[in-house]
Amino acid sequence: MPLMAKNLFADLPAGVDGETLVTLFENSAARVERIVSHSHQSPEGFWYDQADDELVIVLSGSATLEFGSGEIVEMKEGDYLTIERHVKHRVARTSDETIWLAVHVK
Amino acid sequence: MPLMAKNLFADLPAGVDGETLVTLFENSAARVERIVSHSHQSPEGFWYDQADDELVIVLSGSATLEFGSGEIVEMKEGDYLTIERHVKHRVARTSDETIWLAVHVK
Repeated sequence: MPLMAKNLFADLPAGVDGETLVTLFENSAARVERIVSHSHQSPEGFWYDQADDELVIVLSGSATLEFGSGEIVEMKEGDYLTIERHVKHRVARTSDETIWLAVHVK
Repeated sequence: MPLMAKNLFADLPAGVDGETLVTLFENSAARVERIVSHSHQSPEGFWYDQADDELVIVLSGSATLEFGSGEIVEMKEGDYLTIERHVKHRVARTSDETIWLAVHVK
């Protein structure tokens, strides 16, 4: 198969509620996803509790993450944060269109 | 330690020749780097031959990758490409300031 670059900002879902995920890379050790959120937030009282470490990057838009510790982290374009495995968190807010890169690592 | 996001586009090295790497994330399975290239290219005849899979993303600027197969891949802002382990490649060209995200996965 010829080598060809794809683009992160191609085929953006328009006007879709919630989150749309595309897997950019996956092997047995890691998975990289583009996530597009449209004013999405995790359900009230819901917490992610993941088995993998996760590096999240906001490529465009903005978001607010809330942690089980009570900490709140505001993220804008270019911001990145490591969420270690089993650190409880939820998405408290995203902007009209927030594009994330999420790197999940075993 | 309080959770705090950092920014991909902060502390960009100015006017530095070659490449400047910052590690954004690292555990035993993966490493994520921001690489800033200023008109950098791999030495003539040099080929990367890496033990890990690599996902490369151009966050800003542009670049040309050359592969041992003879293939040439032009990359612009937002483009991403997986370079599987042991696929020989080199950086043939970068623009004045090319900002890469490189995800190295075991």
